[in-house]
Amino acid sequence: MPQTHDDVAETTPARADVVEMVGLHGFVQLAAFARLATDAEHAPDLRAQVTISRMAAGELAALDQLETVARRVGADLYEAMASYSTVLADFDRRTPPGDWWERVVRTYVAYGVLADLQRVLSRAVAPDGRPMLDDVIADSGYEDFVVAMLGPVVAADQQLSARLALWGRRVVGEALGIAQRLLAEHPLLWSFADRQDGARSEGDDAAWLRKQLSGGHARRMGRLGLTA
Amino acid sequence: MPQTHDDVAETTPARADVVEMVGLHGFVQLAAFARLATDAEHAPDLRAQVTISRMAAGELAALDQLETVARRVGADLYEAMASYSTVLADFDRRTPPGDWWERVVRTYVAYGVLADLQRVLSRAVAPDGRPMLDDVIADSGYEDFVVAMLGPVVAADQQLSARLALWGRRVVGEALGIAQRLLAEHPLLWSFADRQDGARSEGDDAAWLRKQLSGGHARRMGRLGLTA
Repeated sequence: MPQTHDDVAETTPARADVVEMVGLHGFVQLAAFARLATDAEHAPDLRAQVTISRMAAGELAALDQLETVARRVGADLYEAMASYSTVLADFDRRTPPGDWWERVVRTYVAYGVLADLQRVLSRAVAPDGRPMLDDVIADSGYEDFVVAMLGPVVAADQQLSARLALWGRRVVGEALGIAQRLLAEHPLLWSFADRQDGARSEGDDAAWLRKQLSGGHARRMGRLGLTA
Repeated sequence: MPQTHDDVAETTPARADVVEMVGLHGFVQLAAFARLATDAEHAPDLRAQVTISRMAAGELAALDQLETVARRVGADLYEAMASYSTVLADFDRRTPPGDWWERVVRTYVAYGVLADLQRVLSRAVAPDGRPMLDDVIADSGYEDFVVAMLGPVVAADQQLSARLALWGRRVVGEALGIAQRLLAEHPLLWSFADRQDGARSEGDDAAWLRKQLSGGHARRMGRLGLTA
């Protein structure tokens, strides 16, 4: 169970930036639940279906903490989440998977990017410098699960490997577009960006974010043996 | 966390009836997860979406216990579940909901019937008479949730009430058909039937089961203010 720092959070009521931040995290966690639950129904066997279903369920755990943080700043988590709710439907419509492996790669890539976005935007500190959120982005084990399941398949099938690498490039383009759109529509999120250098202009911010997210994506594709 | 009676269960290895029984329970719990997760995505607001998603997640908790019981009799839970896996897809195809309320009533009716079936077939006792399963069919709160959400809507809208009563009768017909089919295809399940009077013939068994399940359905429809 994640911890909150009640005493500090209470000193910062109704901050609009905090509302946008908890809304983002809540939305991503709920979206991860929904997409993993849907993926599970398409799994090729019951064992994988149960494993992915359990990972889906794990994504909901963070909502308790986010509800608490929202309440502390006088906000409603569900209202905060509502402003994000159409974004992923667009993503899904633009990236219909052709088979099970494309579905797996789509979720692997998209939720990798969104989890990195959550990490990049998690410098939610109270005035005394202590973090307001802990462990929202707990490792669900999904990345390791996909690497164990898909890695050997990719290694043994050059044609599939080439197709999924191409598919991964298409998906990550859409996912980076989503990340950029989330920030453009919720500019207060920038105040939680965990960067050492200062922001200079809007163009710089976008380029910096793209670089952060692309690095994580390249690492994940490398783990699968796919060219990013 | 549910309890198992290890010492006793270990004395009854590889019982085919136990395999069919854990398969049924595992299948129903996983199906409940999947259908509630899908319903959640159609919920009219984020609060309902999160509530239903959490109930979906709760359905998976029983799988740990079922895995343990399956292992104790030398069986694999996922193989045991596999023989059930096409049944609910047929049900879904035959009862496409026209709107959110029909979707809710469909799940309310179908999982009510399946949960009652689980209860009726839960007399899984080891040779010493102690139960092998506890709390598999924990109350997820879904029935109360639907009554609280839909009850006032039905009470205020006579036309909707009439339409949903009709829809409920159609859905329960399909659901009872499923229950009957599950038993016909897995006759060993009858050994777990919790009935005082003895089974006499196949026709009697089917009639007895139908009566048990219809009673629960009528009670649930009554709670919604709908005619069963």
